[in-house]
This record gives sequence, structure tokens and C-alpha cells, in this order.
Amino acid sequence: MRVVVAQLNPIVGDLEGNTQKIIQAIERAREREADIILFPELTLCGYPPEDLLLHPSFIDAQQRYLEMIIRASARLMVVVGVVRRNTSQGEKPIFNSAAVIQDGVLIGYEDKRLLPTYDVFDERRYFEPGTQTRLFEWKGKKIGILICEDIWQHAGYVGYTHYARDPVLDLAPLKPDLVLNCSASPYQFQKPDVRVNVCMKCAKTLHCPVILCAQVGGNDQLVFDGYSVCVDENGNLRQIAKGFEEDEMIVDLDAEVCPCPFAYDPIKDLYNALVLGVRDYFHKSGFRKGCLGLSGGIDSALVACIAVDALGKENVLAITMPSRYSSEGSVADSKALAANLGIELMEIPIEKPFKSFLDLLEPHFKGKGPDITEENMQARIRGMILMAISNKFGHIVMSTGNKSEMGMGYSTLYGDMCGGLGVISDVTKQQVYALCRWLNRDKEIIPQSIIDKPPSAELKPGQKDSDSLPDYAIVDKVLQSYVEEYLSPEEIASKHNLPVEVVLDLVRRIHRAEYKRRQAAPGIRVSKKAFRVGRRYPIVQGWM
Amino acid sequence: MRVVVAQLNPIVGDLEGNTQKIIQAIERAREREADIILFPELTLCGYPPEDLLLHPSFIDAQQRYLEMIIRASARLMVVVGVVRRNTSQGEKPIFNSAAVIQDGVLIGYEDKRLLPTYDVFDERRYFEPGTQTRLFEWKGKKIGILICEDIWQHAGYVGYTHYARDPVLDLAPLKPDLVLNCSASPYQFQKPDVRVNVCMKCAKTLHCPVILCAQVGGNDQLVFDGYSVCVDENGNLRQIAKGFEEDEMIVDLDAEVCPCPFAYDPIKDLYNALVLGVRDYFHKSGFRKGCLGLSGGIDSALVACIAVDALGKENVLAITMPSRYSSEGSVADSKALAANLGIELMEIPIEKPFKSFLDLLEPHFKGKGPDITEENMQARIRGMILMAISNKFGHIVMSTGNKSEMGMGYSTLYGDMCGGLGVISDVTKQQVYALCRWLNRDKEIIPQSIIDKPPSAELKPGQKDSDSLPDYAIVDKVLQSYVEEYLSPEEIASKHNLPVEVVLDLVRRIHRAEYKRRQAAPGIRVSKKAFRVGRRYPIVQGWM
Repeated sequence: MRVVVAQLNPIVGDLEGNTQKIIQAIERAREREADIILFPELTLCGYPPEDLLLHPSFIDAQQRYLEMIIRASARLMVVVGVVRRNTSQGEKPIFNSAAVIQDGVLIGYEDKRLLPTYDVFDERRYFEPGTQTRLFEWKGKKIGILICEDIWQHAGYVGYTHYARDPVLDLAPLKPDLVLNCSASPYQFQKPDVRVNVCMKCAKTLHCPVILCAQVGGNDQLVFDGYSVCVDENGNLRQIAKGFEEDEMIVDLDAEVCPCPFAYDPIKDLYNALVLGVRDYFHKSGFRKGCLGLSGGIDSALVACIAVDALGKENVLAITMPSRYSSEGSVADSKALAANLGIELMEIPIEKPFKSFLDLLEPHFKGKGPDITEENMQARIRGMILMAISNKFGHIVMSTGNKSEMGMGYSTLYGDMCGGLGVISDVTKQQVYALCRWLNRDKEIIPQSIIDKPPSAELKPGQKDSDSLPDYAIVDKVLQSYVEEYLSPEEIASKHNLPVEVVLDLVRRIHRAEYKRRQAAPGIRVSKKAFRVGRRYPIVQGWM
Repeated sequence: MRVVVAQLNPIVGDLEGNTQKIIQAIERAREREADIILFPELTLCGYPPEDLLLHPSFIDAQQRYLEMIIRASARLMVVVGVVRRNTSQGEKPIFNSAAVIQDGVLIGYEDKRLLPTYDVFDERRYFEPGTQTRLFEWKGKKIGILICEDIWQHAGYVGYTHYARDPVLDLAPLKPDLVLNCSASPYQFQKPDVRVNVCMKCAKTLHCPVILCAQVGGNDQLVFDGYSVCVDENGNLRQIAKGFEEDEMIVDLDAEVCPCPFAYDPIKDLYNALVLGVRDYFHKSGFRKGCLGLSGGIDSALVACIAVDALGKENVLAITMPSRYSSEGSVADSKALAANLGIELMEIPIEKPFKSFLDLLEPHFKGKGPDITEENMQARIRGMILMAISNKFGHIVMSTGNKSEMGMGYSTLYGDMCGGLGVISDVTKQQVYALCRWLNRDKEIIPQSIIDKPPSAELKPGQKDSDSLPDYAIVDKVLQSYVEEYLSPEEIASKHNLPVEVVLDLVRRIHRAEYKRRQAAPGIRVSKKAFRVGRRYPIVQGWM
């Protein structure tokens, strides 16, 4: 039996385009004499469709496109993720389903039973959970179909939730010969091998091969890494599809296959996730060109590298905007980096508009000394210049703040936070360094002086981040323990051997900066717990 | 039997402060010889606590504060909304509960059964639904306890959801003498009388009085209007508490009471909701002072009035920032309005920084004519000035865009969209006019010339909103039909007798502007369907 695993990159909501992609994959599978073609979760509408699901016309349209797919499915078994209406009782009017088509006939649907409603997932907002357990027969094999989360609890990998049922165990008494899983499982740091483990656990329990077809691509803040999986009936990894690109993996279940090792470099994967997140954000919305401010610091240097790999060097415009407080090295380092990357660099000093604002406001600010106001003003002038270039030439501005800064509120709203996309806003400062070292592994792309200099916003004379923040190694520990692990300040202090006042100060900063993050550019989510998309806090609150 | 309905305004997460409020209300109720005191839903932590609920330390702390409340409850029956742990099976580890205390003893909990997971509600993200149905006896009466949504489906008022159970019908065979409901039901335009109807329907079905205690106050984007309700066993409105402020309504169930009419002015209520939303956003986060840009237009005029009523005229600073394109009337009208309101007005012309930016960018923009870039630049210079004043003096900037503009993307990101709070970003242009007429009902507060002038951003010579948008009456119809009613463009065209191309153009604008709204200041939610907080769409999508 030959299964084609169609690891596609759909555009959310683009039913017409996604249907064409699906039908072309079906045609290729038939040419390859496949028996089955498996697609990701909600392939037809892309994942996550969010509130598009609330439009009856959006649901109706999917039914029409599904008809086209059915007509194209001669001689194959096609398993494709679609939304279907719930016509019986239940809280919600639709299911997250897999349509099962055999030789051009819709045989039935398998509905997702476990609906994640935590972190970035809101499936109970839209969907009714499925209830039935059954097998589909095709060419002598009994096939069980599960959708994404349905196999995750069995392996112990769900968040904040203990579903009452285990769809894997429900299948066991039916003794399937093969299990297919349609997935849309977003990337997060060090997750790809977890997904392989989840499939292994399912195969071991059911004593049959498990094939998981994953969505790939960036959709707004989520990046789907692909890496579709086939494990054999003993739970050994048999095949794995490419990461971070479309792939059609052909699984010949009857062929002898050597065990397949899955070795991946988490830092390289993190980089690839960011590249794919940028590329799809731009290309799926019809943009080719991006611009960013190069400060001479490590964050914007990393974003420039990602942008070049995502968009091509000819589509990246860097702007260096020195001020009276910029160090000598800032412009020189930016020039060296731009030269290494082969991108255009504009130099636009901000002194004149800065002076103009200072003069304008001077009579109103009488008796008040300089403070954060003038620092923010410089960052906002730079934001203004970037947005002017964006408006005039059609670039999307990429914002360059990292997660550690976003967590602490060490950033200027409407200043360095400007942009259509926060490229590294879910990447900690420690990871920024790791990514830059990885980029420079063979030759120096990012000038070493950029990596070596102490972090500074350069908004006042001699300023360093360490003047107002603890070392980023400490910041990142507290961030992870509070944001990802939900430890209390006392627990964090004890775990990391830090004074509790230091932890409390950092935790309070995290909460105080909520108002800034609420207006941040959407950022590419690459961690277990990303601000806002997976972490939803009140701005006004009295807890911390 | 005497019931005190403690319509409180808690601060989300402020367990200490909320507990003090609760205990003080209990003490007053005892002095008033009450038998029962009823509090809103989740009084102890405030509603909505969002992801604070994911911190085990936050849940543990509530248990400790509940102990203090129990100790303070001698001689009374106290029904107070708290989070409690789910110690048995179930998807989620906590319940949204009412603690039932009698004479200083915790008798038990009643858990919310219907968990809204639509619009602004995400209760399935956190809570396990309750399952039991029982009565509590106190002073000879059998009392049923339900929480907010539990009574709404019975009256036919839930969104996008059909719960399998009806807790009102579940109670019927037990024949309660009285039903108490703990609520946190956010205000939306024309909703207060709906809530009364919901109580009436419950009372008619159960043939007993229903008393609903509502939360009041603004918490981030949601405003809770209060208006706690008591209806008699025939479903007649017996008493209603104050709207938009704390109140302790005393219900003497044995006393004869004349039927109570509930006549309210929806426009006045809308105004009061906005005032409360501003006041609580500021005061609950420790701010007193707000500033805003006065353009001479109707939107900023309305926001100035709301700000004065919310914060006091001494705490409102208006800034007029004329440009080369500002009409003569703009500054004069702003001065007249500021004088009417008794607020300080600063005048800061933007010509100099505007010229400075034009000069700075001229060499880079060679060969390109003026376009939206220069318009946005003016709006952003104004945003920059407002933020500088905010930074220097500690004002929160109030942003003044209305829902019609936000829907269409007729606004400048980082420009007029700057601010800590979007005061009228969920108020349509038609409602803006209605509110201003209502404000001027007795005397002219907003100069008539502000109301009469055609809407204009004044960012280029002779510009009017109508140059690039259809009449706002049309915009608002399409907005409502698409955003609140989920009609398709074809259905909207037919319903409002509009060309389908006009509707399609407007609908596409709504989707295209998603990226701007994602970075908008949080806005006070006053409609059935507010952008972002209750309406969650992808930025990058191929549907429209």
C-alpha cells in the first residue's frame, strides 16, 4: 500500500487556491500510483481560520469546494481536513473534520474529538467535539483516522487539560491496520521531535503504522514546521518529511525500510522557523519588500539576516539612523553588515527632526529636565522614518525587538516597536546570541564587534541596557519560569538562587509592560508561550 | 426574608482589595439585618481574570482569602463568586463557582454549568463546567443558585452556541422558593433591558423570585453596567439597582412592592458606559490625568466631554496641533470647546517638525510625488507630541478614532491611533452624532460648528472623508451587517439596497485594515461585536 503524505502550505481562507493545490496533489498521487493521499488538518481553509468560521457563507463555500475535490478523487482514498456542519445536537454548529473520499465518493467524515482550548488554541470557540470511533476499509486494510490533538494526550503532551477520553485507546479494540492523522501543529522551540514521539506512542499502543500529515507554512503569528511523520507498527521512525517547506512524502508500507534517524539542530530549526514566518507573512499578503532599522546592535543584525533569507537580498532595505548619542561603531558596523549581506543601506541621521521637536516642546517642558521623554522621542523619530519609507515605497517594516525586551517593556511604543511584523519578538536575548553564533559558524556574516558590544539603546550618553536591567541571563531565566512554567516569584527565587526582590521586580515589569505589548506588531511565535497570542492577560490588574 | 444585592466594582486580580470590599459589604448587610448577601460572579478575583487563572499561586491565594470571608460571615447566608479547584475528573482544573456560606460555615459550592466560549468570552479555556443541580436551605426557604450564563440560554440569548443542558429547567423539578444569580455580564448597546428579560423568563418558568447580582465597573475593554435585578415570582420587575456605579440593593421579599418600571435612555447609557470605561481604566491603574488631541472635529470633541466626566476637568489636557492644512475653524472650534469644558488647551503647531521631516526625506523620495506618506507623517507628528506630553507629565493619551474609521482603516497607525485607551473605537460615526446631540440637549457644550462640518482628516488641502469613503450612514450599515450579523456581501447589498461592488469594497477594507487594528489601543467595548476583543480574524487571509 502506497500513501502520499501531502504536506501543503495553504493560505488561510483562500478556498479557491487551496482547492487547486489539493487537486494538483491528488493528480500527482494518482500518477504515482498511490492508494491513499493524506492531507493536513483543515487543509481546505488553512489553519487557524479563526472567526472566518463564524460566517455561514464561509462554511457553505467549503462544501462547494469539497465537491470539486470529490470529483477529482477517482481511484484513490483521499483524507482531507475540512470544516463540516454539525446537523445534530451539540453546543457548536460545526466540526473540525477529515472528509474521507474513496474512488470519487464521499464515504463519511471523521470529526476531531479533542479540541485544544489553551495557549494559542481556541477550538471550543468554534467546534463541537466528535464522538464516534470507527474504521474505514480500503484495499483490504482497516484504517483509523484521527485529527492532530486526538493523539497528543495519549502521549502526555497536552497543556492545562485532561480530556475525559483517549481516542487512541478508543481505537484499540477495533484493531486498525493503519492510523492516519491530519495535523496542523505549530512549531515551537525543540518541538519537532516531540511530535515524532507522539506518533511512536500511538503506534506502540495500536500495534500498527501511524502516518501523520502536517501543515507547513507561516500563518500570521504561527509557523507550522512540517516534518510529517511515518512510524512503523513497532513505533520506530520510518520516514520523516522535510521541515519548513512543502513536501510530498511517499510511504510504501510494504517495502522494507531501514530505521530513519531524526537528528535536528534546534537552533537551525529556530532560524528556519523565523525565515518561513517572515516569508509567508509577506508573500501570502502580496508583499515582496521589507525594510528595517539597523542600529548596529545584535537584534537588528539578526533580523536583517533572517529578512535576506526570507525575501532575497534585493528585497531588503536597511536604514541606519544615527543620533547625537550613537557610538562611532554603530554606523560602521551597520555598513559592514549590509555589505556582508549585499543589501541596500540608507543613512538618515535624526538630529534635525530631533532638534526640531526639542525646540517645539521646550516652552511646554519648562522647568522639567530631560528624561525618558527625549529617549522615546528619538526611537519614535526612527519609527516615523521607517513608516514613511514603508508608505512611500511599499515595504513592510520589520520590527526588531526581542522577547526579553518585550517582556521587560524595554522598548518604545510607536518607536522601535513600529512594524508590520515582529520578527524576533518571541526570541530571548540568549537565543539571539545563539542564532548569531550559528549564522557565523562558517564565516563572519554578522561583524564580531556587533556580537561583542554590550547591549545598548544608545538613547542617552553612555547608556547600557545593564544600567536599568539585570543581566539578560537572569532576565531570561525569570521570564521562562514565570511565563512558561507559571512559577510564583518565591519559587523562581529558590529555583534560580536569586533574591526574591529581584524576581518580584522583574515579574512586576512583565505585568506593567502588558499595555505596550497589547499594541506591539504581531510577532512570530516560536516559544512554548508567546506573549499575547498564547498568553492573555489583563492590562489593568491588581495581582502584581 | 431580606437579601442585600452587593453590586460591587472589583479590580481584576486584586484579591486583597476585593476581599476587603466583600467583608465590608457583609458587615453592612449584617447591620441592616439582612438574611442573605449576594455578590457578583468571580467577585473575589474580578471578571475577567484571563490567564491569571493559569497561575497555581493565584488559585491558592483565593482559597486563603475565601477563608477570611467565611470567618466574617456570622449569621448570614453569603453567596460569593470565587474560583475553586476541580479535584475530580474533567478537562480543566478549576470551576467558576459560587461559594455558599451560612453563619460562618462553608456549606458548599455551586459551579457554573454553561461556559460561554464565544465573542469576548473564553471560559472553556479555563473552566470545567459544573454538573450538579441542588438547592440550599436557609431560614425555611429552598434556594437555587445559578451563575450568569446559566439562565441566558433559557431566554434564548446566547451567541453561536446551543448548550445541551438548561440549568433553569434542571432546577424546575426541585421547586425552588428563590433563585439567586451571580453575574458579570458586560454592557453592550441596548443590553440592559435584555438582562431584565432574561430574569423574567427564569422567574416565570420556576414560579419563584429571581435576584441577579451584577458586577459593575470597567475592566480593560469591558464595561459592566450593574443594573442588578429582582423580579417576582410572576416575572414582574420588582427592583433594579443603579447603572454604572456600585450599589447595595436591599430586597425585602415579604414586603409589598409596586411594579417597577425600567425606562432607560440607550444613548445616555452608552455615554455612561464610556465614562465608566475611561474612569476605571485610569483609576484602577493608578492614573489620574489624561490628554488628547483636539482636531476641531466631532470625534475628539466627544472624547473630551467623556474625559471630563470621567476624570474631572482639572485632569484633562487638550492639545490642538494645527498644520498647514488645518482650516481656520479647527483651532477656534477647539478653543471654544475647551472653554465650554473648562479644560486646559495647549497649542502646538506641527509645521516645523513636518518641514524638518520633509527636508530630511526629500533626497530619498526624489522623483516621487506627495501621497499618503505625507498625510500619515502629519498624523504621526501629532502622535509623537501627545506621547511626549504623556511621558513628560504622566498623562495617559486617549485615542479618538471611532468604529467606522477603525473598520475602514481610515486612520494612521502610530499617528491618530496612538494612545493608552481607545475611548470611542467601538462607537460608530452615527452613534458619535447621536451622543453629541444628547450632550447638547440643554445647552451647547460642543460648538454646533463642530457637529455641522463635514468630516475631514485635514491632512491635505480641502480633504474630506467623503472623497475616499461612501457616506458614513452606508459604512455603518455595512459594518453592522458584516461584523455583527455575519451576512455575506450579496445579502448585505440586497438588505440595504446597495450595489454589491460598493459592499464588496467596504468588506475588503474591513479585512485589509485588520493589521492596523491589531496594533490599536485597547478600546472600550460597547457594541455587540467589538473589533479584536470579540472578533478575532487573521491578518493574512485569502477569503476577502
